[in-house]
Amino acid sequence: MTGFVSSLQAASARRSSLLCIGLDTDWQKLPKAVGSGIKGALKFNKAIIDATSEFACAYKLNLAFYLVHGKAGIELLDNTLHLIPSGVVKIVDAKFGDIGNTAASYAKFAFETLQANAVTVNPYMGEDSVRPFLEHSDRGAFILCRTSNQGAKDFQDFGSGPPLFQAVAKRVASWNERGNCGLVVGATWPAELETIRKIVGEQIPILIPGVGAQGGDLQAAVRLGANSHGELALINVSRSILYANVSPDFASAARAEAQSLRDSINTIRNAT
Amino acid sequence: MTGFVSSLQAASARRSSLLCIGLDTDWQKLPKAVGSGIKGALKFNKAIIDATSEFACAYKLNLAFYLVHGKAGIELLDNTLHLIPSGVVKIVDAKFGDIGNTAASYAKFAFETLQANAVTVNPYMGEDSVRPFLEHSDRGAFILCRTSNQGAKDFQDFGSGPPLFQAVAKRVASWNERGNCGLVVGATWPAELETIRKIVGEQIPILIPGVGAQGGDLQAAVRLGANSHGELALINVSRSILYANVSPDFASAARAEAQSLRDSINTIRNAT
Repeated sequence: MTGFVSSLQAASARRSSLLCIGLDTDWQKLPKAVGSGIKGALKFNKAIIDATSEFACAYKLNLAFYLVHGKAGIELLDNTLHLIPSGVVKIVDAKFGDIGNTAASYAKFAFETLQANAVTVNPYMGEDSVRPFLEHSDRGAFILCRTSNQGAKDFQDFGSGPPLFQAVAKRVASWNERGNCGLVVGATWPAELETIRKIVGEQIPILIPGVGAQGGDLQAAVRLGANSHGELALINVSRSILYANVSPDFASAARAEAQSLRDSINTIRNAT
Repeated sequence: MTGFVSSLQAASARRSSLLCIGLDTDWQKLPKAVGSGIKGALKFNKAIIDATSEFACAYKLNLAFYLVHGKAGIELLDNTLHLIPSGVVKIVDAKFGDIGNTAASYAKFAFETLQANAVTVNPYMGEDSVRPFLEHSDRGAFILCRTSNQGAKDFQDFGSGPPLFQAVAKRVASWNERGNCGLVVGATWPAELETIRKIVGEQIPILIPGVGAQGGDLQAAVRLGANSHGELALINVSRSILYANVSPDFASAARAEAQSLRDSINTIRNAT
C-alpha cells in the first residue's frame, strides 16, 4: 500500500502539475449542449474530466454541490468520481468534523463507499475527530487551517499570542506519523500561507483554494505554498475552468484554461 | 412565519419535554424483527418515532449515519424526516461549515430539500460561513461551541485569556438578531455549560449531547443548560433509547426509556 503523500507526488510528477480542479458543478450553469438535470451534469463532468485530466494532478468535489440534489446528487458524485482516471487524486471536500464513531462513518463514506483518495476535515472538535480519517494510511486528510473566506479572521486568528491557525498547523504536523496529513490554506492569505509552510516543513501538502473568483494571487500561492522543491502545493481552481465558456465548445475552453493554468504554475515553480 | 425559537418552545410546551431523540440508526444494530437494509432501517425509524414522539420535542438525525449508505442513505434520511409528526422539531446534525455560496447550498439541502427545521454548524470558518443558515428566520442553526468529546479541549480551550469557546458563545449571541441561533455544548463539560449559559443569557437554545453513552450527567445538563425558566435546553439522547432492547418489543422498550427520560428531566426542571 502506498502512503498518501507518495501517491500525490506521483500524480503530480506524472502530469508535471500542481493543478487541482474543483468539480463544483452548478446545475443552473450547465451549457445547453449537455442538457439538464443529473444526466446533463454527468455529461458535463465527464466532458470536463476528459478534456482536462492531462493537466490536473487532482480533482476536488465539494459535497455541498452534490448533496443539494439529494440522492440524485449522491449518485452523481459517485458516478463522477468513477470517471476520474486512476492515478489522479480524488478529493471529497466535505469539511467533516464529528466525534470519533461518527467521524469513522464519514471516513467509511468517503474512502470506502466513494473510494476517494482524500477528504477535507474541520479541526474544531480536536484530535479525536480527525484520527478516524488518518487511520487509512493510503488516504489523505486535508485539515482546515486558514480558510480562503473573509470570516477566516473571526476565530482562526483567535489568541493574544500566536493565533489559533498556527496552533492547528503545529498540531497537524505532530499527527503526521503516517504521512497522510495535509492542510487547507486560502490563496487569499499569502502572509499566513508563508508562515504555515514554515511551521509544517517540507513533507505536508497544502491544498490552496481561493485563486480566481475569490481573488487570491496565483504567483504568491505557488511561491509560498510549495515546499523548497516546488512540490506539495495543490492549487485548486474551479469556476474559471468549469465555466471558461458555455458554448458547445465549453470542453475545449476548459482544456485550454487548465493547460494555461498548469503551465503558469510551472513557470512560477521553475522561477523560484 | 414563526421564528425558530418560538416553534421550539411550542414543541417543548406541547409535550412538556426537553428531550431530543438522536436517530443515529446503525444498520448493523437493527432488531431482527424489522429486517435489514434500507427497508429494515426505515421500519425501525418509523417504529421508534411512533413509539416515542409523544415524549420528544425534537429528533436529531446525524448525516454521517445516513450518508455512509450513499444514495440509499439519503433516501432514508428524507423518508425518516417525513415520518416525524409536524410540531416536533427536526434537526439535521451535519456540522456544516463552508464558504458563503457553498454554505448556501447546504442550507438549501437541509431547509428546502429535506424540510428540516434546524441544523448544526461548525464555527471554525467564521461569520460568513454561518450567515447563510441564519437567513432563514424560521429555521435554527445550532453552532458548535464546546463539543462533548475529549478532543474538545484541543482547540476550543485555546487562548491564554478566556478561551475560544467563550468567544464563540459571545459572537453567536451577537448574531442572534432573528432569534434563530443556538449552541451545541456537551453534557460532559458541566462547568463550561454553566459559563456558556451565563454568556448567552435566556434566549438562546442549547443542544446538549453527551448524556448516556458518553457519560454526561443528566442532572447537571438540565440544571446548568436550561435558562432560568427551565427552558431552551435540548437534551439529546440516542443509543440508550434506540437500542434499549433488541427483542421484537424494542419499540415498547424505547417508549418506556423515552418517557422515563422525559420525566426525569422534568423532575430536575421542577426542582430548580
